[in-house]
Amino acid sequence: MAKDIFEKIKGNRGPIGQFAKGVHGYFTFPKLEGEIGNKMMFRGKECLVWSVNNYLGLANQPEVRKADADAAAKWGMAYPMGSRMMTGQTSEHEALENELSDFMKSEDTILLNFGYQGMVSAIDCLVDRNDVIVYDSESHACILDGMRLHSGKRFVFKHNDMESFDKQMERATKLVENTDGGILVITEGVFGMAGDQGDLKGIVEFRKSGKYDFRLFVDDAHGFGTIGEKGMGAGEHQGVHEEIDVLFGTFAKSMASIGAFICAKEQIVEYMRYNMRSQMFAKSLPMPLVVGARKRLELLRTQPEHKANLWKIATALQEGLKENGFNIGDTNSAVTPVFLQGNLAEATNLTFDLRENYSIFCSIVIYPVVPKGTIMLRLIPTAAHTLDDVQHTIDTFKIVKEKLDKGEYKAEELADVEVDK
Amino acid sequence: MAKDIFEKIKGNRGPIGQFAKGVHGYFTFPKLEGEIGNKMMFRGKECLVWSVNNYLGLANQPEVRKADADAAAKWGMAYPMGSRMMTGQTSEHEALENELSDFMKSEDTILLNFGYQGMVSAIDCLVDRNDVIVYDSESHACILDGMRLHSGKRFVFKHNDMESFDKQMERATKLVENTDGGILVITEGVFGMAGDQGDLKGIVEFRKSGKYDFRLFVDDAHGFGTIGEKGMGAGEHQGVHEEIDVLFGTFAKSMASIGAFICAKEQIVEYMRYNMRSQMFAKSLPMPLVVGARKRLELLRTQPEHKANLWKIATALQEGLKENGFNIGDTNSAVTPVFLQGNLAEATNLTFDLRENYSIFCSIVIYPVVPKGTIMLRLIPTAAHTLDDVQHTIDTFKIVKEKLDKGEYKAEELADVEVDK
Repeated sequence: MAKDIFEKIKGNRGPIGQFAKGVHGYFTFPKLEGEIGNKMMFRGKECLVWSVNNYLGLANQPEVRKADADAAAKWGMAYPMGSRMMTGQTSEHEALENELSDFMKSEDTILLNFGYQGMVSAIDCLVDRNDVIVYDSESHACILDGMRLHSGKRFVFKHNDMESFDKQMERATKLVENTDGGILVITEGVFGMAGDQGDLKGIVEFRKSGKYDFRLFVDDAHGFGTIGEKGMGAGEHQGVHEEIDVLFGTFAKSMASIGAFICAKEQIVEYMRYNMRSQMFAKSLPMPLVVGARKRLELLRTQPEHKANLWKIATALQEGLKENGFNIGDTNSAVTPVFLQGNLAEATNLTFDLRENYSIFCSIVIYPVVPKGTIMLRLIPTAAHTLDDVQHTIDTFKIVKEKLDKGEYKAEELADVEVDK
Repeated sequence: MAKDIFEKIKGNRGPIGQFAKGVHGYFTFPKLEGEIGNKMMFRGKECLVWSVNNYLGLANQPEVRKADADAAAKWGMAYPMGSRMMTGQTSEHEALENELSDFMKSEDTILLNFGYQGMVSAIDCLVDRNDVIVYDSESHACILDGMRLHSGKRFVFKHNDMESFDKQMERATKLVENTDGGILVITEGVFGMAGDQGDLKGIVEFRKSGKYDFRLFVDDAHGFGTIGEKGMGAGEHQGVHEEIDVLFGTFAKSMASIGAFICAKEQIVEYMRYNMRSQMFAKSLPMPLVVGARKRLELLRTQPEHKANLWKIATALQEGLKENGFNIGDTNSAVTPVFLQGNLAEATNLTFDLRENYSIFCSIVIYPVVPKGTIMLRLIPTAAHTLDDVQHTIDTFKIVKEKLDKGEYKAEELADVEVDK
């Protein structure tokens, strides 16, 4: 007889889930309560929060809150029903697409009902079995899932390594000469974990020089709204915006909402409208999210002070950390990682100390996302933070790093957290 | 050199997109305007609409609209930010999960930030390369995409055909004896196109009799809220609710919103929380959608009149159509297909006539979804319709069927629709 597929699940919570017992509700699935901002409540205590991607502080910007509330009052959350293709099309959806095209200087734009599935279906519909995908090794989960649907070959290049890219492109180019296919290169504008921009300029160089032929698909979830003079993202910042053939942006970070979009030439977008499975066969983005996104985009366009405030905080934080000897890696975006050396127990004890005794809430990233022995604390500065927040954080980080270096977090047992589930 | 992946897209709009030129905005991407209900505006004219899955009429139910508006005013659309696992957990999310567990008589429930990607990741995390998936041939696109991520074998059985199911299960059982894997059977509670329920009872019989061992995953998007005494879906209706191991429901149909959920034993749900990629790596369902879903579920539970009204309309429509000689296939849900014979031109001309001259808006389904030469008109009755709507529709269908039979829709040119893009 067949085995029970559930047997392997019982007692196996997976690579992250294995740590969940005892920490669920604290290190995983923590509840941050109150209005999104620099200070939120965690387990009944006010904390300084560096963990939410509310880069521009739009989550509670009064005009945004009013737009969200008014749209929900006017439309409810139901309208429109059905997929865009069937019964979910509205003039508001079209207007938002047009405004995004204007802002992004793109021929056309397609809204996505959710970024993750939108990315998966975009990759799925752009390539066939004869094509090869060449992608960065640190690509986001949604890119990996999209590629897993690809029936042709895929070659991975070492993260942001142009030598490795060159090698994989050579392999890919040889291969497609036999399959009669093309090449799609996929990378990110800003890598959300460590904050380094994808080397879009380096990649585009290979095409400009005539060495390789390919189309470039960039996921700029973290760059959209935060980077580049106008906030168009990493492509704008690196001067290669117009070389990006397919550009993915999301409303889930700087826009503080859900939903996403893809910019491309009109013909490509029209093709996507009729061939992206998650968009053809799932519900259209509800009206309040569309109307709310239009308002957010208007603020992105007309109120540059939000981005200026973000960078005032991000720069102070990053400069301050560096001046105090902290390793913040290669970030050239607002995302601010702090790399420390320590084992799992030290990582959790340090984070516990930060939260309980210094009221600082930041996310902690451990192996396998970073190498064994490395602890990455990930800080997301936003326009809602203050320079005092930055100072308090740097002062505190100096204290906990000293404790870490002295071995004070080396307790064998993980911090014993009482979690009420 | 590599080919251009965009070359094959230019001039190729895909299986559905190829018909888009001239009909975009009419047969595809039509705009239904005004409040969701039995009557909506289409191209400036009021139409009787049979195309939206607002089964229980909750889209504009006053308490629902108030809950949506109040929640958006209180929370905005941003909160919470981040994935459930990182920073997107709230007590409201947990409360909704608990209420769904109570309503569905399930040990545990996991909310999904969107149904499509939730289904894809659920399948992805439940099976490994040694397992075999056995699935119904008419499964929804999101099930197919989830299976495409599966690295093991998958066997398809003819739609609702228990002889074919038996044969595929025999193959699967033989195969897993070698791979040391298990079997996951996937089907739907209600097939949304033609309205027939999946033969859950028939499938469960094979396990009860001891012939095969497997776990059963049911997508009951259309059954949840509409079928079964309490509205738990097709499993309840067929008396096998407790035999379903993994049960998927959505908020996008009877609940008139977005988001979805999966019910299963606690251990399985806990595993899913830490292993469903689209849930671990994408934003949590925004608060107004969670609070709105709680209100909708409350009405589902406490106001049985909505389901009663749905079935009053559905029964009158289906009985009336049958009495007048229409073929409505094997539907045993609210979904009401009407099968006619004709080619593509006749299908579009008939639909055009219905919309323009009789103000009836319904969806039209053609080859390849139904066999060549078949036209399927798909009607979705809801609690918001009236018996007059039903009578007008049956009367009109008699007229257009007569025209169709007389060859009056045989014009070689498709209906020439002026669409302002």
